[in-house]
Amino acid sequence: MSKRALSVTREQNFPDWYQAIVRDGDMAETSPVRGCMIIKPWGWGVWERIQAELDARIKDTGHDNCYFPLFIPMSFIAKEAEHVEGFAKEMAVVTHHRLKNEDGKLVVDPDAKLEEPLIVRPTSETIIGDAFQRWIKSYRDLPLLVNQWANVVRWEMRTRLFLRTTEFLWQEGHTAHADRDDAVAETLKMLEVYRTFAEDVLAMPVVAGEKPPNERFPGADNTYSIEAMMQDGKALQAGTSHYLGTHFAEAQNIQFQNAQGALTHCHTTSWGVSTRLIGGVIMTHGDDDGLRLPPMIAPRQIVIVPMLREKPEDAELIEYCKSLEKELKAVGIRTLVDLKLTKSAEKRWNWVRRGAPVIVEIGGRDATGGNVTFMRRDRLRDGDKVISDTKPRADFVAEALALLKEIQSTLYSEAKARLDSNIITNIKSFKELEEYFGPAAEGDDEAGAFKGWVRVPWSRPEGATLDAIADRLKALKLTIRNAPLAQEAVAGACLFTGEAAKEYVLIARAY
Amino acid sequence: MSKRALSVTREQNFPDWYQAIVRDGDMAETSPVRGCMIIKPWGWGVWERIQAELDARIKDTGHDNCYFPLFIPMSFIAKEAEHVEGFAKEMAVVTHHRLKNEDGKLVVDPDAKLEEPLIVRPTSETIIGDAFQRWIKSYRDLPLLVNQWANVVRWEMRTRLFLRTTEFLWQEGHTAHADRDDAVAETLKMLEVYRTFAEDVLAMPVVAGEKPPNERFPGADNTYSIEAMMQDGKALQAGTSHYLGTHFAEAQNIQFQNAQGALTHCHTTSWGVSTRLIGGVIMTHGDDDGLRLPPMIAPRQIVIVPMLREKPEDAELIEYCKSLEKELKAVGIRTLVDLKLTKSAEKRWNWVRRGAPVIVEIGGRDATGGNVTFMRRDRLRDGDKVISDTKPRADFVAEALALLKEIQSTLYSEAKARLDSNIITNIKSFKELEEYFGPAAEGDDEAGAFKGWVRVPWSRPEGATLDAIADRLKALKLTIRNAPLAQEAVAGACLFTGEAAKEYVLIARAY
Repeated sequence: MSKRALSVTREQNFPDWYQAIVRDGDMAETSPVRGCMIIKPWGWGVWERIQAELDARIKDTGHDNCYFPLFIPMSFIAKEAEHVEGFAKEMAVVTHHRLKNEDGKLVVDPDAKLEEPLIVRPTSETIIGDAFQRWIKSYRDLPLLVNQWANVVRWEMRTRLFLRTTEFLWQEGHTAHADRDDAVAETLKMLEVYRTFAEDVLAMPVVAGEKPPNERFPGADNTYSIEAMMQDGKALQAGTSHYLGTHFAEAQNIQFQNAQGALTHCHTTSWGVSTRLIGGVIMTHGDDDGLRLPPMIAPRQIVIVPMLREKPEDAELIEYCKSLEKELKAVGIRTLVDLKLTKSAEKRWNWVRRGAPVIVEIGGRDATGGNVTFMRRDRLRDGDKVISDTKPRADFVAEALALLKEIQSTLYSEAKARLDSNIITNIKSFKELEEYFGPAAEGDDEAGAFKGWVRVPWSRPEGATLDAIADRLKALKLTIRNAPLAQEAVAGACLFTGEAAKEYVLIARAY
Repeated sequence: MSKRALSVTREQNFPDWYQAIVRDGDMAETSPVRGCMIIKPWGWGVWERIQAELDARIKDTGHDNCYFPLFIPMSFIAKEAEHVEGFAKEMAVVTHHRLKNEDGKLVVDPDAKLEEPLIVRPTSETIIGDAFQRWIKSYRDLPLLVNQWANVVRWEMRTRLFLRTTEFLWQEGHTAHADRDDAVAETLKMLEVYRTFAEDVLAMPVVAGEKPPNERFPGADNTYSIEAMMQDGKALQAGTSHYLGTHFAEAQNIQFQNAQGALTHCHTTSWGVSTRLIGGVIMTHGDDDGLRLPPMIAPRQIVIVPMLREKPEDAELIEYCKSLEKELKAVGIRTLVDLKLTKSAEKRWNWVRRGAPVIVEIGGRDATGGNVTFMRRDRLRDGDKVISDTKPRADFVAEALALLKEIQSTLYSEAKARLDSNIITNIKSFKELEEYFGPAAEGDDEAGAFKGWVRVPWSRPEGATLDAIADRLKALKLTIRNAPLAQEAVAGACLFTGEAAKEYVLIARAY
């Protein structure tokens, strides 16, 4: 049994701990629709903060938001050959447009069969490319920089809330450029937007780098990712940015007239992050008492719990809390007084599990003494004991913004230290790699000892050589995460080919 | 030929004028997917403003945002009998979850047929009700007040951008209450939120009232709407709010234990507005030069066009415009300097067609004289002549917020005067009604003389009597819009039944 606010600890069973946080932190729940989740108000509030912060950054870099159809004609998906291979597998297919009553039972009307099946978008390169083809005429129209916030569907066999769901929410950026340089610069610029967003807003340190060819987006020339280290040592791909070359432009006839009058294919890019980020935040910052939310994405940054006793003095207590809320809101802090009809202790632990950055508890003595008693969610306990602090109200209000900044920064530093100290660099052979990670766990059990990531020299093999390496790694449930963009000069031979290494890559178990 | 910025005037052909504004105002376009639209950046910017303003009002009234699945199992739709009748018709049905390559061709994989078909949500009462049934245990959980922003799909046979599309975007509020009074109060509260939102934010005057029984939402006890008058005299239902009684609660077992310990069914409500509002804004405020956007929802409230001449002085001009932009942004005005590589005149007319509330044109003389020359989109012309004003820059900046407020208010007053003066109250018989509206236009041609709305006394007939009246009206392409909530005491007999009237209702042709 856990002495903490969750029924299971990370140590005991990491996957169960994750489920407990999602459930008891009021983030999301499974729905009666296979693989689709219901995002609850607290979880949705986090997504709204993520959207607002990232959307501002996407607009600041010159992108316009638009909206494209949910459905994609099957023939569109077929246009880009590699794209077909990668995506034309598990997707939701709309084949009919009507139901009817038959003997009092609702059935699909066979007379309402669509001439061409429609796919619920798994990603929108093809439908957006079709618009680009119409919108782009001359070099004056370039670069064309658009983004959309949308729901997408990929028929996943094995799902886990936020991390891998049949329907998920994301933003997908799509851009067209006059040449390779401009498109590659865009791809890397958005990767950098993702990196700084993850670190500055989610307090989630990541490694930005290039994926090996076998992990590329179907139809991309280069795929880049940001990878975050979860508390079980696994990697989470938290965002990707793709340079698509002219593949989609050629398949869809996206051309422009250059300044000399010649028709030329555009170079395109796409990039996206999704509700998966929320899973990353949970597994980066959660502890055995529940979620710990970075203040920048907490729907409520300070929650005030009045210690009501069903006595006449309660009115005064509530008044005190409300005026404190007003003062905090006035300096721009998302504040809530929790007036629900439940016990104060229950409220405290609910907010602990949800990860509100600061939980204020106001009792009669605080109110009469003009004080504020509060807990920092980032440092909830000293040993087993819950710690709180009491301050004169004016001081608390004056220091509240700085306190939230400090919590944001503490969460980042803690996660950054974990990432930095858990990338192992002394593995010299595949055998050592095998021994280090040990055999892959059987079946679905993904729990296991913390192993972190391994950095190895790499000769950038391709084709069959790469496939063989990927297969060997797969047997250990390992994958190459990426080749970090920021890395020191490589020394030595590739761990797999023995050839001279060209760079380092990171290897890990992953979500 | 029109002497205005659009190729067709309202007078010449209202439906064509509407299409021209949507296209030339860069709002949206049809997509290759039947009935689905592509919302372009300027149109999407309007929707973002609508979302932000309405979302704040929905939250201020105590509602939490969540997210529920895109798909609804077919069996859920079947649960509420009237709901089935009303909705289980034209919907997108997902029957398979995989495509496969067959002889190099992409086909639906017959082995991947779903056991139960999934419906792409046409509205979410049933899937949200299922969650309510799990979430609600006691009276302490009530009222439960949630809202979601989502895409929905209804397989419409005849579509028109924004007004009626297969896929559209909306918010849908869903609430559960302990008793009828609380649920009815919620229904009317949200109707009032919609009314004030339409009038204060969209500058679109509306009449709030109750729909007759034949126009109720399938499964509702009462449906209320806000109705707006378009410039062709037709009505547009711009938002609805439904009191659902205990129908959905009974069908889905949404029960709570009351303070005495007895299990009781909840009373539920739902309410929504959609991207249709944008169509309403266009047909309320547009003129023959294009769209006129109320400043509160204009993605850019002031657009600055530098009159560039491809000369060295251009740099100074751009500098002047950028510093002006900075000053305007500093007072919270959404401002843009249009630096595209197109001619100034083209830019001016693009922004006129898009409806930017204030268009500033800065030439060399303005820059050297420290002046600002600008056009108000709400009063673009005097006769045929385009009018502009020039002011010292400091004055312009100091008065800019007030100017935007004045434009917002002018647009509202203009539309309000049109609404008020075009509700005819002297029709005394069905024959007079028939003569007033004249025969319905043939086929799809919805153009015709402006007729406005007619207000008649009404005895609240129901059942077969009501159906017969609805049929007679339908032959004239007329419908009962609503019985206004705010109305004077009724006098006389019902126009249709001859019985003593209980209230007035509004009759009109409608979108």
